[in-house]
Amino acid sequence: MKGSVAVLSVGDELVLGQIEDTNASWLARRLQAIGRTPGERRTVGDDRRALADALRALASTHAAVILTGGLGPTLDDLTREALLDVVSPCAALVEDAAGVEHLRGWFERRGRPMPASNLRQAMRPPNARLLANPHGTAPGIGARFESDAHACEVFCLPGPPNEMKPMFDAFVVPALGDDAHVVATAALHSIGLGESALAEFLGELMVRGREPSVGTTASDGIVSIRVRATGPRATAQAALESTVAECLTRAGNVVYGRDGEPLAAVVGRMLAEQNLTLSTAESCTGGLLGAFLTDVAGSSAWYMGGAVTYANERKIKDLGVAAATIATHGAVSHETAIEMARGALTRFNTYLAIATTGIAGPSGGSDAKPVGTVYVAIARRDGDIFSRRFHFPGDRTTVRRRTAHLALACTRFLLLGEGARSLLWSEGEAVRVERT
Amino acid sequence: MKGSVAVLSVGDELVLGQIEDTNASWLARRLQAIGRTPGERRTVGDDRRALADALRALASTHAAVILTGGLGPTLDDLTREALLDVVSPCAALVEDAAGVEHLRGWFERRGRPMPASNLRQAMRPPNARLLANPHGTAPGIGARFESDAHACEVFCLPGPPNEMKPMFDAFVVPALGDDAHVVATAALHSIGLGESALAEFLGELMVRGREPSVGTTASDGIVSIRVRATGPRATAQAALESTVAECLTRAGNVVYGRDGEPLAAVVGRMLAEQNLTLSTAESCTGGLLGAFLTDVAGSSAWYMGGAVTYANERKIKDLGVAAATIATHGAVSHETAIEMARGALTRFNTYLAIATTGIAGPSGGSDAKPVGTVYVAIARRDGDIFSRRFHFPGDRTTVRRRTAHLALACTRFLLLGEGARSLLWSEGEAVRVERT
Repeated sequence: MKGSVAVLSVGDELVLGQIEDTNASWLARRLQAIGRTPGERRTVGDDRRALADALRALASTHAAVILTGGLGPTLDDLTREALLDVVSPCAALVEDAAGVEHLRGWFERRGRPMPASNLRQAMRPPNARLLANPHGTAPGIGARFESDAHACEVFCLPGPPNEMKPMFDAFVVPALGDDAHVVATAALHSIGLGESALAEFLGELMVRGREPSVGTTASDGIVSIRVRATGPRATAQAALESTVAECLTRAGNVVYGRDGEPLAAVVGRMLAEQNLTLSTAESCTGGLLGAFLTDVAGSSAWYMGGAVTYANERKIKDLGVAAATIATHGAVSHETAIEMARGALTRFNTYLAIATTGIAGPSGGSDAKPVGTVYVAIARRDGDIFSRRFHFPGDRTTVRRRTAHLALACTRFLLLGEGARSLLWSEGEAVRVERT
Repeated sequence: MKGSVAVLSVGDELVLGQIEDTNASWLARRLQAIGRTPGERRTVGDDRRALADALRALASTHAAVILTGGLGPTLDDLTREALLDVVSPCAALVEDAAGVEHLRGWFERRGRPMPASNLRQAMRPPNARLLANPHGTAPGIGARFESDAHACEVFCLPGPPNEMKPMFDAFVVPALGDDAHVVATAALHSIGLGESALAEFLGELMVRGREPSVGTTASDGIVSIRVRATGPRATAQAALESTVAECLTRAGNVVYGRDGEPLAAVVGRMLAEQNLTLSTAESCTGGLLGAFLTDVAGSSAWYMGGAVTYANERKIKDLGVAAATIATHGAVSHETAIEMARGALTRFNTYLAIATTGIAGPSGGSDAKPVGTVYVAIARRDGDIFSRRFHFPGDRTTVRRRTAHLALACTRFLLLGEGARSLLWSEGEAVRVERT
């Protein structure tokens, strides 16, 4: 425990569950990245006694405590007083001249008079120092707690994440950073294989106790490989990249991106590089696929537009789907999906066109086509038309999100070329139509 | 502190910040709803000593402790052992016959052999009882901690939320529920007024210390009024509804829904009730508006379809926008928005058509039309066409989401009739075109 860092979150709104404490998990991850072990985490309300008790207990058993919150200008912000109780129990708070200067400047630059209550934010225990906050009025406070042979560094930072995070980097990292024991992490995002199939490819890389460690998590059809290396910074980083390379070799081209890159951005970059264009014809996704694509900045270079053809009449009028096709095979079928894609290709005059049609639920399913049945078709100028049937578990929102993701995944496989194209066929029922 | 309930979350994955602890805030809110005060919250890793220390400290100062996690079948699940250390430090864990029965049945029903390690989940301190878990293998454990004159009820529940939540309702609510001091809450969602303008309407309802309390929060252009009443259940519920009614009177028809109801669902219900239909023509939102609308189950009854006309060529070809309009006024203008809406109305033959065009960023802005400039136009069969200009701060994703929300808000005002229609004009630059 001695080298570990505790996190103390302060605020009635946290204790009452009115907001989620995302600061604490962010701090835990950043502490590992700079080579420190996150220890216990506590949350207390705006109560001077409870706050001081928790701070004293954590400071007595950890090498450092990072406290967030309770530094505002109002009377229920009690971090300053509680810190005093712990590090200088017999003294009074003092006004910090530089802190007063900071507050005056803050209000002056905004052309507003400073409320007198804000002066509380320039107060600190006599044996503590203020930590500058470039993004808000509340300065942080740094102090040292000593008891018998044990010493603990205490950092009090403001609660708003946009103020807290840069102050962590400016004050905590230089004081606590330890390049000898960092945790380096990477996430590789894949789509097209289930979690267990991907795990088979990764094989003994996933054995527990391996260093760097390799694990998987799944969400909305996207399976992410998480790699984590610990050790001296340079060694950990090299080990991380070596394992990442090994994962990429084994997982192959189902991996589309790293560290949060959206699938739509990857597809967009491939289109832009090959100077190709795309359009969409959406039934069950109702615009979600277009929304994913246009969330990518610069998408107007390769995304030409789409038709949201929720009603059958729109499929017929806007995309030229034959009424007989819908009557014979249903709106949710390979045949309709293929005609939708072909229609979009013609109408929007793009290189590729993606079509979705399915039963998102909660009603509309049948024995042959239960809720979650979805067809994705992709037409290519001067190429074949592919269509694949999926069945997704989950509620309406989940089915729609997975449909949009899988449609993008299929598009990516098509753009990757002949070798990858077989992955379009790797699972479930699929048909390929020669272009007439 | 004596009557308060502490929450202890257990797991290395929480301490390391790998997952967010949403259980703790859920428990805090539910505890208030059943009349109990949430006290301190702690998070510890999978360490028997640290877990027992934290549990003993919390049990010594609170009336009850709810612990989540550490009840799995593997050796790093140590809640059973730590509970033993606290409530029966001189005894050993005993195997619970009913617990063994539960586990055997669980695996039998799934046609799988039970791994021997799962038997650990039937172990409990001798003076404790197992709590049935209908949704997983891990039973919970209930125990009583006594020290001097103080007694504390301890409830150990499994970490997965879908298992933990029903067990809270089944075991904790009957034991701790106290109808004499509940917290009743309601959220009213509004759009069309800024947070400060809405606060002016609410007036002294928002004064601090008022009971029931009234506050506001804002996200993506939606301002929510949060009402909170405490007291005996019947009294609190009546006071809550009385204040909710007062808020509704004062805020007027900017409030569209309650307790999480989506704006698109409200618009859809109004359309369905009046037997009207809607279509969309989306440029900057690129399908997001359609995605919001089709996320509503049953939307095919009133949403006929849409055109995603990201490229100017599509605005001209699909919606009949005049090339000269785009050349003269730009694609982001009242004139283009109005022609887009009119085009969608004709093409999709609906009662209403909504059009969006704007500069979502990060590039594409100018002095006259900076990033965040958006036009929303609504055309009505046999009615005028309204168009309104907005300027939204924030990044690309924020601008697009706010555009979709405001477009739905304007549609709602239009459907509310003449009186509300003026709200379409209440802020910013707007034009109204007589239908030719």
